[in-house]
Amino acid sequence: MRILVMNPNTTASMTASIRATAIAAAAPGTEILATEPLWGPVSIEGHFEGYLSAAAVLDRLATLDTPFDALVMAGFGEPGREGAQELLDVPVLDITESAAQMAMMLGHAYGVVTTLDRAVPQIQDRLLTAGLLQRCAGVRGTGLGVLELEEDPERTVEVIIEAARAVVRAGAEVICLGCGGMAGLDEKVAAELGVPVVDGVAAAVKFAEAVVGLGLTTSRGRSFAPPRPKSIGSWPLSTHLDLGRGRGSSCHTDFSAQTSDI
Amino acid sequence: MRILVMNPNTTASMTASIRATAIAAAAPGTEILATEPLWGPVSIEGHFEGYLSAAAVLDRLATLDTPFDALVMAGFGEPGREGAQELLDVPVLDITESAAQMAMMLGHAYGVVTTLDRAVPQIQDRLLTAGLLQRCAGVRGTGLGVLELEEDPERTVEVIIEAARAVVRAGAEVICLGCGGMAGLDEKVAAELGVPVVDGVAAAVKFAEAVVGLGLTTSRGRSFAPPRPKSIGSWPLSTHLDLGRGRGSSCHTDFSAQTSDI
Amino acid sequence: MRILVMNPNTTASMTASIRATAIAAAAPGTEILATEPLWGPVSIEGHFEGYLSAAAVLDRLATLDTPFDALVMAGFGEPGREGAQELLDVPVLDITESAAQMAMMLGHAYGVVTTLDRAVPQIQDRLLTAGLLQRCAGVRGTGLGVLELEEDPERTVEVIIEAARAVVRAGAEVICLGCGGMAGLDEKVAAELGVPVVDGVAAAVKFAEAVVGLGLTTSRGRSFAPPRPKSIGSWPLSTHLDLGRGRGSSCHTDFSAQTSDI
Amino acid sequence: MRILVMNPNTTASMTASIRATAIAAAAPGTEILATEPLWGPVSIEGHFEGYLSAAAVLDRLATLDTPFDALVMAGFGEPGREGAQELLDVPVLDITESAAQMAMMLGHAYGVVTTLDRAVPQIQDRLLTAGLLQRCAGVRGTGLGVLELEEDPERTVEVIIEAARAVVRAGAEVICLGCGGMAGLDEKVAAELGVPVVDGVAAAVKFAEAVVGLGLTTSRGRSFAPPRPKSIGSWPLSTHLDLGRGRGSSCHTDFSAQTSDI
Amino acid sequence: MRILVMNPNTTASMTASIRATAIAAAAPGTEILATEPLWGPVSIEGHFEGYLSAAAVLDRLATLDTPFDALVMAGFGEPGREGAQELLDVPVLDITESAAQMAMMLGHAYGVVTTLDRAVPQIQDRLLTAGLLQRCAGVRGTGLGVLELEEDPERTVEVIIEAARAVVRAGAEVICLGCGGMAGLDEKVAAELGVPVVDGVAAAVKFAEAVVGLGLTTSRGRSFAPPRPKSIGSWPLSTHLDLGRGRGSSCHTDFSAQTSDI
Amino acid sequence: MRILVMNPNTTASMTASIRATAIAAAAPGTEILATEPLWGPVSIEGHFEGYLSAAAVLDRLATLDTPFDALVMAGFGEPGREGAQELLDVPVLDITESAAQMAMMLGHAYGVVTTLDRAVPQIQDRLLTAGLLQRCAGVRGTGLGVLELEEDPERTVEVIIEAARAVVRAGAEVICLGCGGMAGLDEKVAAELGVPVVDGVAAAVKFAEAVVGLGLTTSRGRSFAPPRPKSIGSWPLSTHLDLGRGRGSSCHTDFSAQTSDI
Repeated sequence: MRILVMNPNTTASMTASIRATAIAAAAPGTEILATEPLWGPVSIEGHFEGYLSAAAVLDRLATLDTPFDALVMAGFGEPGREGAQELLDVPVLDITESAAQMAMMLGHAYGVVTTLDRAVPQIQDRLLTAGLLQRCAGVRGTGLGVLELEEDPERTVEVIIEAARAVVRAGAEVICLGCGGMAGLDEKVAAELGVPVVDGVAAAVKFAEAVVGLGLTTSRGRSFAPPRPKSIGSWPLSTHLDLGRGRGSSCHTDFSAQTSDI
Repeated sequence: MRILVMNPNTTASMTASIRATAIAAAAPGTEILATEPLWGPVSIEGHFEGYLSAAAVLDRLATLDTPFDALVMAGFGEPGREGAQELLDVPVLDITESAAQMAMMLGHAYGVVTTLDRAVPQIQDRLLTAGLLQRCAGVRGTGLGVLELEEDPERTVEVIIEAARAVVRAGAEVICLGCGGMAGLDEKVAAELGVPVVDGVAAAVKFAEAVVGLGLTTSRGRSFAPPRPKSIGSWPLSTHLDLGRGRGSSCHTDFSAQTSDI
Repeated sequence: MRILVMNPNTTASMTASIRATAIAAAAPGTEILATEPLWGPVSIEGHFEGYLSAAAVLDRLATLDTPFDALVMAGFGEPGREGAQELLDVPVLDITESAAQMAMMLGHAYGVVTTLDRAVPQIQDRLLTAGLLQRCAGVRGTGLGVLELEEDPERTVEVIIEAARAVVRAGAEVICLGCGGMAGLDEKVAAELGVPVVDGVAAAVKFAEAVVGLGLTTSRGRSFAPPRPKSIGSWPLSTHLDLGRGRGSSCHTDFSAQTSDI
Repeated sequence: MRILVMNPNTTASMTASIRATAIAAAAPGTEILATEPLWGPVSIEGHFEGYLSAAAVLDRLATLDTPFDALVMAGFGEPGREGAQELLDVPVLDITESAAQMAMMLGHAYGVVTTLDRAVPQIQDRLLTAGLLQRCAGVRGTGLGVLELEEDPERTVEVIIEAARAVVRAGAEVICLGCGGMAGLDEKVAAELGVPVVDGVAAAVKFAEAVVGLGLTTSRGRSFAPPRPKSIGSWPLSTHLDLGRGRGSSCHTDFSAQTSDI
Repeated sequence: MRILVMNPNTTASMTASIRATAIAAAAPGTEILATEPLWGPVSIEGHFEGYLSAAAVLDRLATLDTPFDALVMAGFGEPGREGAQELLDVPVLDITESAAQMAMMLGHAYGVVTTLDRAVPQIQDRLLTAGLLQRCAGVRGTGLGVLELEEDPERTVEVIIEAARAVVRAGAEVICLGCGGMAGLDEKVAAELGVPVVDGVAAAVKFAEAVVGLGLTTSRGRSFAPPRPKSIGSWPLSTHLDLGRGRGSSCHTDFSAQTSDI
Repeated sequence: MRILVMNPNTTASMTASIRATAIAAAAPGTEILATEPLWGPVSIEGHFEGYLSAAAVLDRLATLDTPFDALVMAGFGEPGREGAQELLDVPVLDITESAAQMAMMLGHAYGVVTTLDRAVPQIQDRLLTAGLLQRCAGVRGTGLGVLELEEDPERTVEVIIEAARAVVRAGAEVICLGCGGMAGLDEKVAAELGVPVVDGVAAAVKFAEAVVGLGLTTSRGRSFAPPRPKSIGSWPLSTHLDLGRGRGSSCHTDFSAQTSDI
């Protein structure tokens, strides 16, 4: 099966890191395809950028002509998933919900460590809407912005551990890494904390495999029925924007089959 | 003071109807400015269109060069408000929350009557996130699409009353009209039902006047801090789209001062 | 329109201060009429006094022969509002709910600063019943009794700021002043905190203007149907009590039209 | 021990009926003292009357010079209990909460059958505030007013059974009789329904015996600390009202020791 | 009436201590019968032991041939109660729920002090399922294991007081002793804290007296209907186990009538 | 990897059916090992049997000497999972939670169709404790007992569809089959309903693969720390029971590697 992993921002290095994590998590036979929007913010650190990204992700999905069996949305706490669920016939997994769900399989309560403090209420709201907040013992920021995560990896792990310890004291038995940009740091953090650490990208890839493996997909009967036919001005946006030559085909999308397990 | 009322879809007749309702609600001295996005769907009937509209509304706000003192977002149940709260220094009111809040001032429990059944969970989620769901006795669709509301006004009022009766039986003591396209129908519905009917556009205009009147605005300390400076590709979108000549300045925006009370 | 602002205790200086705040908040054309009960406690600092006050307020309403268009009840956390909603045909606003509702228009979560710690659960219960507790990040006492608030205004502002900082740390993005006796201190507190501060009296006056402005009033269909005709011994109480000559007509009620905006 | 049972309205026949139920429930050695307010409504069917009654009950308590070991407040859904808890050093039981608590000892979910539909939200709010609503499967009115309950006892039992069946269908495994005026009907209703039926008066008497039997009483540390010393105009009200000669000592209070178990 | 008090572990000294507390709480005329399972863990400090104990308790109940009028289950936070409710025709009280319910009669919010920190989420879950968590201000461990409680009584009281102070600071107005092994320590703890302390065993005995006194028992209509007739391998377990001679009749069961009040 | 699937009752035909469903769901390379307790009820239809089964399952786990990488507990709504999580170092999945979690990946709200109506509150309680009830639109019984499910498969599918339609009307967008005995019926039901149908056994197998695939297991830090060393009488039970020769090694355990995908 082929899973499309969508980095919601336009930073290619983050797409690459998310892609690597997804490949490491994928089962033999699962092909990972990673991409990002053709326009929009370089990182998402708030509602405004989240809403732009949601539209940019939907635009990317509307114009991508490669088939895939499931979509993994690799933004943490951002809006957009429900739109993709309407747009696509294949299942859509979100790393916020997937991280929380996997954490709930592993412990009684979980906590989330994220980037900036301003993202905390946004993440809590997504978990609330997803029906997954009840067993959340806390969401805590590290004070690092999304792109700062890559600057000094050692320092990044340190502040994640510090924030994680605080949510463990508040009752968390499992920690979720609350940013796509933290992909790949789970093991280092877990080694220090002594509790399981869930990487949302890895969790979502496994859940995508699970859902596709059972032949299931999004319920189309009510909330996520396909969009009704109607006129949408300038849609898809990227076909109306001057995005530079050849952008649609390169754009950091990585179509190479993953080979990590072979 | 000047209140900008934003119709989230691109249907000019709906902007006009929302504008008329806003003007009727406004106090003497309040100027109503009504507009709509420069691109996007002609109506919003689901998550996908809602997310497109959110970006289109933010785009419209980013490029509008007329000052205003408060924004009223006239979509019901759609996403986007938090983005505008980050983007703007002036207060932002949303007709979903405003309708519910005014209803809670008038009765113990309220109900919402909306368009299609598929919008029901979306509206409930917005009310949940807003912290206003506890006293909601029910949200119910009429089966009419957004643009169908205008087709046969008599039939529209009939089906609204029918749905409203069902939520009253479920405990609602006040009814909220759950679509910007229902603006102006409150009195006809109330006359039949015998309980107060709240038009969200009217409620939001009054609340905007209230907030501005007290010199208050959005808290900028955490959730709705201004966006951090960063690179956003193709932003603002409308300046990169070929939207036709002069579109930016006309576009069904109605700058005329409201005169209903003079 | 004429708004009656009811101080729930019998302390005239507090009525005056509440009246001044209401006048400052009122729009041109809004007349503020402020009064207080004819009997009952000089301040309300608990359930017992709250229940006495509720009856005294209802008694005052039953005997007042001046017409008004809306009632603002200026006690914070006390019972009584629902009784007034049954008794009156005009809308009834309560400063507890109004402060919370306005705060929810301005930020994601709000906090309340009140007088004595013993009032904290009482306020939380009122917000719970009102369906407004979900987004409350905390209610915190200053340790000052209601009448002590007026004794040393500088110290009062200091302790309010200290308590407000604690609820901000707990996630509040907006602060509500949780006592009618704190009316007028909002700006000083806001200047120090850097987040919006809501004065419940001001908020309730604006919401009263909003509700009346739209021609709406309390739903009379279920919870707040008018009292059924029946025998009530010694009612209205004040007509059976020896309250001193002429009390019914003077009693610190201030009928003068507000002129602050002219 | 001596338990004071307070009928919140002034109807002597209801006091007598409540007293009889309390005596039937009491253990040997428990003395039942039943009384009612000296003024106020003949029945309580809404918030307005409930608030008057709360003050009238507190007034009665403030002037009663007979010692007792626990108070049972026999109104269902009305306010007032917290005031009595502040005023008295002895424990205070309320039939609303006691009925719900006993029901929760007997089944997974319970339901309440009450008088008028307008009381339903009021009862739900009391249960919510008491922290007992989660396992409530429904509250349902019979359409009979409080004083109508006594008019045609056979019809009364019939409509109670009909309403009870509806809440059983909604998941209730135990039924609470939701009005002091239904005291004594539990067995007839239970015989028809096949599920336990809880009479709140009986439950509260047993719980009062339980609390007193363990030497426990209301926590005085925070919510229910004694009222602070202060001036309260015209208090206690009954000493300032012209209530007729000797009313304070007779007033349908029944001081006779209960003898049912001897 | 005769109340069977079940210590869920096999430690006879704990049965004795629980029995003594039950006798001290019982009314004249109430006979206390205390026993423990015939097999299973010596103490319960987690889910695994809790589930074993649940089966061992049910086994004990299935083979006990002494009649009783109510069962008090003296484990705190462990599973099993619902099974006994199905198995028995008499009412079943649990000290977790009884402690919480009595605490809610005495104050606005309560807290629980228990043994090991690992039990905290387990207790919270039991209270959640029981519909009693809303007014719980906190559950806190002392760090002492169940059997360590008896080792140094003075130290035990000290650490209980320390933990209790923490939950009082968090808003608890009443403290519940959260382990059957803490039976009898309530007065010492209360004397230090100044708030009521509830011993669950004592509370459950009084509530058993209350329920039996009113002739009520578990609703058999749905959740707690009697088990359906079916084949259960090796049941009752104790009749298939080699438990030693005469174990079934002695086994630390204490049939002597309680005489504390005579 | 090897997944142990535990049928909680002793009915071998049900173990076989659950095993077949698990095998069909398993990925290539996953070995399914299915077994059942050595003693206990032939089916679980209530709390009493559930608690017996919990102990019997733990007993089976304590004595099984075959290694496995994850446990799937195939009872729906029964207790026991937390005990296995303490006992084992490998992850433990439960079909109740797994079904709900997979359903939440596919739609906004889900519903559960189960056997007897008496199981409904039990299932709701498990979902509540698991933090998964918020998005449950309803749990509904078919009226068929567990073993009756196999009697007339056509009728079984019919009544499941009928019950499913009712929860769809209540808002469910996905249906969970709420009994291990319904394993394998998902496709027939889905074909009729037009919404996704989740088989809990299949979901749990996929989630076990996901968790094991990422090298994760239960958090051992708090709720699910290993049992403390202590004396447990007659444990493991099966070694003290006379269960017949060779039972421990045959007992319907099916060790054959699954070959469905080869």
